[in-house]
Parts: sequence; structure tokens; C-alpha cells
Amino acid sequence: MLEITAKADLLVKKYNMLSHGDFVVVGVSGGPDSMALLCYLLSKREELDLRILVANVEHGIRGKESVADTEFVKQFCKSKDVEFATISINAVDEAKQNSLGVEEYSRIKRYEFFNSFNPDKIATAHNLSDNVETVLFRMSRGTSAKGLCGIPPVRDNIIRPLLTCTGEEIRQACKNSGIPFRTDSTNFDDAYSRNHIRQNIVPLFKRLNPSFETTVSRMIESINEDESFIKSVVDDCYEQCFDNSSLNTSLLNSYDVAVAKRVVIKYLSSYGVAVDDYHLGGIVELIKSNGKFQIANDNFVVCEKGRLRYAKMNQTVDFDNLFVNKQIITNEEFLTNCKLWREKFDFFCDCDKISGNIYVRGRTENDKISPAGRGCTKTLKKLFNELGINIEKRACVPIICDDKGIVGVYGYCVDERVKPDSSTKNILLLKILLEDKI
Amino acid sequence: MLEITAKADLLVKKYNMLSHGDFVVVGVSGGPDSMALLCYLLSKREELDLRILVANVEHGIRGKESVADTEFVKQFCKSKDVEFATISINAVDEAKQNSLGVEEYSRIKRYEFFNSFNPDKIATAHNLSDNVETVLFRMSRGTSAKGLCGIPPVRDNIIRPLLTCTGEEIRQACKNSGIPFRTDSTNFDDAYSRNHIRQNIVPLFKRLNPSFETTVSRMIESINEDESFIKSVVDDCYEQCFDNSSLNTSLLNSYDVAVAKRVVIKYLSSYGVAVDDYHLGGIVELIKSNGKFQIANDNFVVCEKGRLRYAKMNQTVDFDNLFVNKQIITNEEFLTNCKLWREKFDFFCDCDKISGNIYVRGRTENDKISPAGRGCTKTLKKLFNELGINIEKRACVPIICDDKGIVGVYGYCVDERVKPDSSTKNILLLKILLEDKI
Repeated sequence: MLEITAKADLLVKKYNMLSHGDFVVVGVSGGPDSMALLCYLLSKREELDLRILVANVEHGIRGKESVADTEFVKQFCKSKDVEFATISINAVDEAKQNSLGVEEYSRIKRYEFFNSFNPDKIATAHNLSDNVETVLFRMSRGTSAKGLCGIPPVRDNIIRPLLTCTGEEIRQACKNSGIPFRTDSTNFDDAYSRNHIRQNIVPLFKRLNPSFETTVSRMIESINEDESFIKSVVDDCYEQCFDNSSLNTSLLNSYDVAVAKRVVIKYLSSYGVAVDDYHLGGIVELIKSNGKFQIANDNFVVCEKGRLRYAKMNQTVDFDNLFVNKQIITNEEFLTNCKLWREKFDFFCDCDKISGNIYVRGRTENDKISPAGRGCTKTLKKLFNELGINIEKRACVPIICDDKGIVGVYGYCVDERVKPDSSTKNILLLKILLEDKI
Repeated sequence: MLEITAKADLLVKKYNMLSHGDFVVVGVSGGPDSMALLCYLLSKREELDLRILVANVEHGIRGKESVADTEFVKQFCKSKDVEFATISINAVDEAKQNSLGVEEYSRIKRYEFFNSFNPDKIATAHNLSDNVETVLFRMSRGTSAKGLCGIPPVRDNIIRPLLTCTGEEIRQACKNSGIPFRTDSTNFDDAYSRNHIRQNIVPLFKRLNPSFETTVSRMIESINEDESFIKSVVDDCYEQCFDNSSLNTSLLNSYDVAVAKRVVIKYLSSYGVAVDDYHLGGIVELIKSNGKFQIANDNFVVCEKGRLRYAKMNQTVDFDNLFVNKQIITNEEFLTNCKLWREKFDFFCDCDKISGNIYVRGRTENDKISPAGRGCTKTLKKLFNELGINIEKRACVPIICDDKGIVGVYGYCVDERVKPDSSTKNILLLKILLEDKI
């Protein structure tokens, strides 16, 4: 245990992982990593006055073997006078019921279980080999510096004291110190990719450098330092740029692209939106100008008036299914009711000026209108700009047409052509049921 | 050529690689990469009014084959009406004569040759596969973000238009466009490691992700952005901290460790000293306190009085070989000469107060002295501090001893015990030949 204890001590000290009197829940499967972790923590129990509880999750995947693992951990805890708790889940079936991957579901359940004891710390047995695999895996799938930071030694109340020890070192330490462990015959964590990296790729790197894992560990540490520095700059920048649910683009532009990109990532993640490298490049271009940029489906980023904001666009409103309540009343009745009801009608025009059928559609690129009483013709784009209608809402504004063309923009104006005047006899009123679509 | 042309165009534009009227020297070996590069540049020749000169280096390694490659390139240039120049070197023998690796020597000779034409730009045919190999190679040997930046698309006047095209894409483009090329049967560039990465490791990553190289390319680009941002902060920090051949440590400490480390790297590299990750960690610790830290051999970093500086320390002065010129004169003669010569003697004491033999050595940790006339005893460490003797010079200061202990610090003071006084009859003078050792 000596060497891994020294490495763990260093890491525990560096990240201030353990405090006097901590209540630590340790996830223990019975494998070499978690048994070594448990023994390490037990060696600190007295000195730090730790309360240690071993939490074991039986995933219901390996039948008898899995149940025997749990029994093995339970007996070990009994012999060391350590609190022990276990739950059984049926990971495969339950994951399917919850539409989650088996590993993701299991992870959620594990941490739910660990947190249920309300501990100060949760200790997990991730090691350096796991970390190197994680980094190589992410590299193979595409990542930035953030992905190269690997598994964090500390996240919230989760601590990983063995993160700088290789799997080989831990197994060796168990053998040398007589720490018993069980061997898990399955590995359902991204099974193919991770096993491929562990069994095929890492050994090839070790041919170039037998200390490959430790070497990569230093790289991970160095990248973490860089990332931590950039993060501090990003946090400052975010604080300065963020206001009123949007970002100040001229301020954002004054920062380096490495910072600006991370600020955008942070902003979008607050809406639960993840953005890949390609789209990030597009957004950064957008910040320098104006307009909108589609991230995915109805997720957009809009830049206007010096601000960048996230927008969910209902790009395709089904106007055919909007209920149109048509009503024709006399001009006299209309004028009386207007005064009587003190009501602003959503849409009204001279009924007799309508040509053929009346219907509702969304705007198209070249739509033009001559707003009643204004003596000019303009594109709907220009009109919407004047009216201050958000880009993402424009597609949802109902355009009222007859066989000759546009007769009005619902909620905003009618065309000169159908405007009621002194000769008007009948008024057409329209009511459009927009429901929650805008 | 279409796809690689598009990629090259993008890169050329992004980095502003080519300007109208540029004189471009292209390194061409006859392999697919350099032939594709040449054809790409030729396709831009008219539009950009480029003057293109093909420079070929025959390394004298592959005998007839290598000479035939040169002839092949020469004929191709003739057919395309392109200036052609070639030199032959005997890389293996000449490298040995210059105590350099074959690859390093060849690289130096190549760029010497390219630059001899005084071009605006030197174009080399490095591709994305080379870049990915470089990054994986560095990762296997240990690197920080800087190493993960890979091969730069532009460095000084060197441009690499094909850096985002994979080797496979380039070979395919040559085939599709009928660009002829020769296949190099050797690869002497870090032969084993690079071939191992290319032939064994990269294909395994491609099983996880067929677009592995392009994926890593995006990672490289992202890390480059980060590094470029951090570099700008580092340059500012360096400018603020650097003065009088040293760095201001309290200022340096106010920066993030990621920045501070790079400032130290930059500072030491100005002395031609490279520092690895382990030593860098030590130096960063040192900045928070005081003292000295050994980088390698006689290379030290010294922190004192709020400044960090590089110091070359002669840690082991061979005091036995210092010539000691002993001279005994009467007190009368000494006093007369002092006035006459107006000379400060390097070392003098009451000869009759010396016990046994007199000799010279370097200081040891617990050395103490009672400086004559001061009425106190102190460690040499404290005395040296008072005298403002640089840490790196302390080991070189000769300590004069007799059989009872220290009688003086050469050049600075004698011990109370051997101080001449009114009863002194004979004075012992010492001259120590320090040569260039201090």
C-alpha cells in the first residue's frame, strides 16, 4: 500500500479532500480499486476521526456472482467494524423503462443511494488508468481542452483519492498488503470503446513509454491548470457580458476567441443547450455581425442590437390548424361596439373589399404590405423590424391573405386595399386561436 | 484535387499564407504530399502572380532511388515551366560529424537551402496525418497544451497549406487528378516511434472513429486558440515582471499558475534552458518563498529579495586546486605597506594565533564565525545574507581554516580569534587564485 498511500496522501492534501470528523460514504463494489480505497480511508479513520459508511450497489446484472460480491464486501466491513449498506437494482430493465443507457441509469441510482445518507463526502475509486482511458476516449470522439481535463479529483462532495494511481499499481498494492478483492467479469461502461482503448490502444502507447499513464497524468494536470485559469477569465467575462437574459456582443468581441467561445457555451448551457465545435464557430462569426444561427432543431442564437440571445423558434407553425373565427357585422354596429366595448379588435377590414377566399399563412421572404394610412409599401421584414418583433417570433405571426394577396398582419395592421373608409358597409372581424404557439 | 484544394484554400485564407506577387520556395521530395502541394501552388500561380521555385534536397541516404527522385522532380518542373534547384547532402555522415541526429541535421540543411533563395515564403507539405502523429507522439512522451498545438500552419515565413488534409486524402487527390509521385522507401524521422504510431496506433483509433484525424484536428485547433489566448496574457505578464535580468516574484505570484509557469519557461528559455514539468512545479513553489532550486547540472533558479533569476552555479569549486600564495611579514612591515601601497589585502591575520595547518575549503551548512571587532557569533549563512552575496556565489567563497576551525572568509572578514592586535608580531597574508571560478 505504501506507494499508492503516498500518492493518495498527496492528492488528498492538494485538493483538501478530507476534513476532521468527515462522514464519508465510500462506493465499494468489491473490486481491487474500491477495496484499496476503503483500506486507504480506514487507515485514516482514527487520525481524522472519520465516520465511514460503505455503500454497495448490486446491479442485478451478473446473477449469483454479483450477489456474492455484495456478501464479500459485507463480511469485510463486518471484520473491520465499518457501517455497511446495500441496495439491489435491476439496471438493465429499469434503465429501459426510464429510456436511459444502463451505465447512465446505474450511475444516477448509485449517486442517489450515496447521497441518501447525507454524507460530507462521497469517495469513489476512479484511478489513473480510468482517467487516461477517459481522455483517450474523448480525444477519439472529439474534444477541446475541457475534455482533456479528464475525471476531476473533486466535484461537489465527490472525492477520488486514487485518481493518480494506475490500476496496475492498485492491484499490486492489494497483493502486497493482502487486501482481498473480487474480479468483476463484466464491464458495461461504454463496453466496446473503453475495452478497446484499455486492451489495445494503451498497451501500444506503453511500448513507446512504459510510464505512459503517469506521463498523460501530468498532461492532464497541466491542461487542468490552463482550463482553470481560462475559466476564471470566462467567469469574469460572463459576469460583465450577461444581462437581461442575453450577452453584450461588443464586450464579448473584445475578448479572445478562446474566452468568447466558452462564454457562449456557458450561456447556452444555462438553457440546457449543448453546442458542438462546428456550431460554436458559426456563433462566434455571428457575434461580429447580426442575424440568427440555428444550433439544432428549433434552438437558435439571435444577434441583434448588440446583444446575443438564445431563442427557441417555432419555425413551422401549422396555420391551417389555427381556428379562424370569422364574423361579419355592419359598419354601424362595428363603430357602436367599438365605443361600447372599448375593445381593440385583433383584425378588421372592409368585408366588401376582400377578393375571393380569405385564409391565414406564415410570412414568406418577399411579402410586402402597404400599411393602412401610411401611404407607403414595405417588406414585412422591414415592418417587423419597425414593430420590434423578435426574429424568433416572426414566423409565428399570422399573415391574412385573400386571392389578391396580403390583406393584413394579424395583431398589427391591415393593408390600405381593405381599410374601412366612409363608404364601408360591412366589417369583417377575424379571431385566430393561437393557443400557446406564440 | 477538389476537396484538398478547398481545404487548402480555407487554411491559406485563414492564415493569410499567400500574398500577391510572393516568391515561394516549395520543398519537393517527389512524394505525394509535396507533389500535391506543388500542384496546388501552381494552380494559384497566375491568379496571385506567384514566383515559384522548387527546392529539392537529395539526402544521400537511399542511393540510386534518391537520385532518381530528384531527376523525377526536375523533369516535372521542366514540364510545368517551374524553376528548380537541388542540393545533395550526405546526411548520415555529416550529421555524425556535427554531433546531430540525422533528422535534425537534415532539417537544418533543408531550411538553410530554402532560405538561401531569400524567398517571401517557404511552403512545406506537412499534412494532417503528420500533425496527428506529432500530437500523439508528444502525448506519449509527455507534453502540455503547447505540445498538443501540433505543427503550426504558419511559423515565420514557413507556410503549410496542406496541414488540414489527411495523407489518405492527398494520395487520393493525386490519383484522381493524375498527379505523379514517387514513394519514399525510408522514413528516418524518429523512425520507430512515428511508424509505430502511424501503422499501429492511429488505425486502432480509426476503428473507434473513422474520422479520427479530422476529429483530432479540431481538438488541435481548439487547443491552439486556448494557447494563443494564454500566450497573450503571458506576454503581458512577462513585460510587467521582467526587469534587470530577473522576474518580480510578487507580481508573478499575482498571476494564475498556468500563466506563471509559462512566464518562467519563457524567461529560462532566453538563457537556452529548457525546463520539464517536474522542475517547473518546484520553481513555482520556490516563487512563494525564497532560496534556490536546481534545474539540471549547474543550472539553478534563485529567488531572493522578491526577484527570481537564473543562476549558473559552480556548486563544486575544487578548493584543493586553488593556488594559495602564503606570505608572512612583520606587523611593522604590514602597517607600513598598507599605507604605502594603499592596498586592501585579501586576507590577513595574526600569524602566531594560527593553530597547526592552514587550508581552504568551501562552506558547510553549520559554519559559524565571530567577525573580528563585531563582538558576536553568527552562521556564515547569516553573514552572507548581510554581505549581500548571491546565493549562487556562496559555494565559491573560500573559507580559510586552521586546525581549530574557521579563521576567516576570504575577501570579507577574519575571525576574532586571529585578528591582529597591539601584541601582534607577524602577519600572515594569503592570496587565493580563484581564476574564472567565481
